[in-house]
Amino acid sequence: MSGLFVTFEGPEGAGKSTQLARLVERLWADGLACTVTREPGGTELGSRVREVLLDPSLTIDPLPEFLLYSASRAQLVANVIRPALDRGEVVVCDRYADSSLVYQGAGRGLDARLLTDITRAVTGGQMPDLTVLLDLDPVIGLERAARRGQPDRLEQADLAFHRRVREGFLVLAGLNPSRFLVLDAILAPEVLEERIWHAVQSCPHSSSTS
Amino acid sequence: MSGLFVTFEGPEGAGKSTQLARLVERLWADGLACTVTREPGGTELGSRVREVLLDPSLTIDPLPEFLLYSASRAQLVANVIRPALDRGEVVVCDRYADSSLVYQGAGRGLDARLLTDITRAVTGGQMPDLTVLLDLDPVIGLERAARRGQPDRLEQADLAFHRRVREGFLVLAGLNPSRFLVLDAILAPEVLEERIWHAVQSCPHSSSTS
Repeated sequence: MSGLFVTFEGPEGAGKSTQLARLVERLWADGLACTVTREPGGTELGSRVREVLLDPSLTIDPLPEFLLYSASRAQLVANVIRPALDRGEVVVCDRYADSSLVYQGAGRGLDARLLTDITRAVTGGQMPDLTVLLDLDPVIGLERAARRGQPDRLEQADLAFHRRVREGFLVLAGLNPSRFLVLDAILAPEVLEERIWHAVQSCPHSSSTS
Repeated sequence: MSGLFVTFEGPEGAGKSTQLARLVERLWADGLACTVTREPGGTELGSRVREVLLDPSLTIDPLPEFLLYSASRAQLVANVIRPALDRGEVVVCDRYADSSLVYQGAGRGLDARLLTDITRAVTGGQMPDLTVLLDLDPVIGLERAARRGQPDRLEQADLAFHRRVREGFLVLAGLNPSRFLVLDAILAPEVLEERIWHAVQSCPHSSSTS
């Protein structure tokens, strides 16, 4: 039996971590085996790549930035995500390939075809069953992120970049309506939690409906 | 005026560093502006990626390994190699794209088409004018490398892998005869040095012949 693959996407400050944690608690309460991971990271290699990517002292061009995310992703898919899905588990991942397509494509202007081709090779075509997009006005998102302390390199990028990223996510969601659940991130956390839980239970590949 | 791009390839222990240093000394003695670099590395990002790639405690699958080399290369081409060539300098690089095609392709079995497509994007088509391949029986190369101390992760790989790498380099050289100078690395250093210097001086794009 194949498991269920759920990803969370959206800008910093949209509440991804909170909603991810609440979903995982409900999955556990339901007795479902669950693997929780994140990008970049999730493996020993991924953690090392994450340190490099989020180091504000480093200058990283858009293409090498994308390749570093892709390296972390390739290791994560092969060693964590695919094995967990093969065991029939629910895999919940904080960011995935959509983030690269949007941040490095719509955001940094890299060629979409190149990003898609490399992403297909890196994921082996393993896309999520459900992607929760927490949509938020970038101005609010950056304010929220700033209140949490020192901004990292991504958060320091300018507002126009974050607007392109928001548009990019919404375009991706529009192109993949059966996979994406788009939610307004300014809704109350309890409301978001219920809508996400409902979507997970309604998901065609959901282990929790079998 | 565009400069001259020279790369050194071959296994560990073949004498690449020695010959590279000797070539650079002669270029300097000739009064030629010269940029010397290496892969992985050559930029701040590249140095960080190099630490990750050569850390023997890390498990890295072939595809992420290739993507990490490619990330380092993309940053190096855009920020070091291309600007130096545009200034009309001689760029001498210890390993380049050929190493990835051979180590991750012939060596680790990744799809050659995928590697070639990504490499074309990463280099922007910037290939060397001259590639010096120091060819060596892997048994001799591994003995030489072991005498220099603790082997790194690449050197620990098995002998069959190194035989595939050697074959891969020779196939690439055969496919690109006008770019490659293949030399038997067991020749005396002075002999190798003279042959390399002659090839550099004969190179059609060489600044030293203008």
